[in-house]
Amino acid sequence: MTRPPLSPADLRAQCRTGAWTAPTAGQAPGYVQANLVVLPAEDAFDFLLFCQRNPKPCPLLEVCEPGDPVPRRIAPQADLRTDLPLYRVYRSGNLVETVADIRHLWRDDFVSFLIGCSFTFDHVLIRAGIPVRHVELNCNVPMYRTNIPCTPAGRFSGRLVVSMRPLRPGEAIRAVELTAPLPQVHGSPVHIGFPEQIGIDDLNRPDWGDPVPVKEGELPVFWACGVTPQAVALEAKVPLMITHSPGCMFVSDLREHELLTQ
Amino acid sequence: MTRPPLSPADLRAQCRTGAWTAPTAGQAPGYVQANLVVLPAEDAFDFLLFCQRNPKPCPLLEVCEPGDPVPRRIAPQADLRTDLPLYRVYRSGNLVETVADIRHLWRDDFVSFLIGCSFTFDHVLIRAGIPVRHVELNCNVPMYRTNIPCTPAGRFSGRLVVSMRPLRPGEAIRAVELTAPLPQVHGSPVHIGFPEQIGIDDLNRPDWGDPVPVKEGELPVFWACGVTPQAVALEAKVPLMITHSPGCMFVSDLREHELLTQ
Repeated sequence: MTRPPLSPADLRAQCRTGAWTAPTAGQAPGYVQANLVVLPAEDAFDFLLFCQRNPKPCPLLEVCEPGDPVPRRIAPQADLRTDLPLYRVYRSGNLVETVADIRHLWRDDFVSFLIGCSFTFDHVLIRAGIPVRHVELNCNVPMYRTNIPCTPAGRFSGRLVVSMRPLRPGEAIRAVELTAPLPQVHGSPVHIGFPEQIGIDDLNRPDWGDPVPVKEGELPVFWACGVTPQAVALEAKVPLMITHSPGCMFVSDLREHELLTQ
Repeated sequence: MTRPPLSPADLRAQCRTGAWTAPTAGQAPGYVQANLVVLPAEDAFDFLLFCQRNPKPCPLLEVCEPGDPVPRRIAPQADLRTDLPLYRVYRSGNLVETVADIRHLWRDDFVSFLIGCSFTFDHVLIRAGIPVRHVELNCNVPMYRTNIPCTPAGRFSGRLVVSMRPLRPGEAIRAVELTAPLPQVHGSPVHIGFPEQIGIDDLNRPDWGDPVPVKEGELPVFWACGVTPQAVALEAKVPLMITHSPGCMFVSDLREHELLTQ
C-alpha cells in the first residue's frame, strides 16, 4: 500500500514537530525545493552580491528581510527556523552542531537566502524521457570542486562546485535545451565532456555525494551546484552561518512549472 | 561626411574631459548601455534586495564593491565618477544638482548599480525588421507609471514604470520571442493591449519621455522600465542618491550579443 505524497505544508508541519528529520528528495513531488543559507546582516550584503555575480551556482529563489524567518514569496505560511528537517550550524568555518530547530539561535539581524536546487531539473529531465543515473541508482548526485573561479564579492571568493550527470550525446543536447530556460535552478550546463579541463582528476572520487558510472558512449555533463555558496562561505570563515543539512532541503509552495513563468 | 562611430572607450574619454555631455542613444552601436544608481552602503543591501526581487524593471548588469568606481565586469578601464555625460544628485528625494563629474562627492561607502537599459532591445527589434516607433520619430520612448506593485524590500517600495512600443499583432508576438531570452535588458513584455488594465489612463500623456502615435490595428506593448528603481528610491527619500541624467547612460564594453551568452 503506497501512501499518497505529502503536500509541502504537511511535510513542513512534520518538520516543525520534529517528526520528520530525513532527506527530502522525492517528497512533495512537483514542488520546488531550496538550499538554505542564513547569515547575520553584516555578511548579507557581500553574500547577496556574491549570488548576484554568480547566478549559475547561486540562483536566488528568495531572500528574506533581516530578522524575518518567513519566505513570503515561495511559502508565505512557512517558518524557516523550524520547517526544514535538519540544520547545520557553522562558526568560523567549522561545523559545530546539527539541529532540528534553530529558534534558540535566531537573531533579529539574520538574513535567509533560499537558493535553487537541482532536484527540480532532475524531474524536468526525467519527464522528458532522459534517464538520470543517480536517481536510477537511488543515490546522491556526484559533486566536484572545479578549477573554475567564481567572481568574488567582498569576503566571499572560491571555486565553482559542479554536479555531474552522464548522458548520451543526443540526451546531452536535449538537456541543454531543457535546462537553459530554468536559470532559477542552475540553468544550462557549465561543461560537457572533459573533466580534466575543469580541474577534476577522477570522476570516481567526488568531493560530495556518491560516484556514478559513466558508460561507454556517454559524456559527463556538469552543472553549477548549489553547494558552491556554502563552500565559499565556509572558506571565508564567516563567524556564523546556518544551512540546511545535506539533502534536507526546504520544500516550498512554488510549483516546478511556475519557474518558467517567473 | 559621416564620422565613424565612437568606441565605448573613446566616448567615455570624451565624457571624462567634459567634452561630451549629451545623450548617448545611438552612440557606440552594438555595445550595451546601462542606467546608473549610486547609493551609500547603508541603503545598498535593501536596494540590491529590491533589484533581486524585481528583476524585470531592475536587471543588474553589475554591482560594484563599496567604494569602487570601476565596473570590473562590463568596463574594467572605466571610472563611474567621470565617464558618464551627466549625473543627477538627489538628496532626500529632491534633485539638487546636475553635474558632469562626481569625484568631489565620492565616498568610500558608495555602491554603484548598473542596470540594463532598453536601448539594447530596441536594436534587437530593429535588426529583426520590427519598426520601433520612437526610434523612427527620433524621440524618447514614452514611459508610464502603472498600478502594478513592485515587490518591496526594506525601505524601497512602489509601482512599476513601463515603456511602450506600438506593434502590429505579428510583430508583438515576435517581439515577445526576441526579448524573452534577454532578461538582462528587461526580458519579455509585462502587458499587451489594455493600458487601463495596468492603470494607464491616457497613452498620449506619458509620465516620462515623449508620446508616440498608436495606429489602427496596432497593440500597445509594455515592457518593464529601468526608471522604476530610480522612482522607487526617490519615493523612499533616501538621504543621498546619484544617477545618470535621463538619456545620458553609461556605455559599457559589453557587446549586445554577449548578453545572450552570459
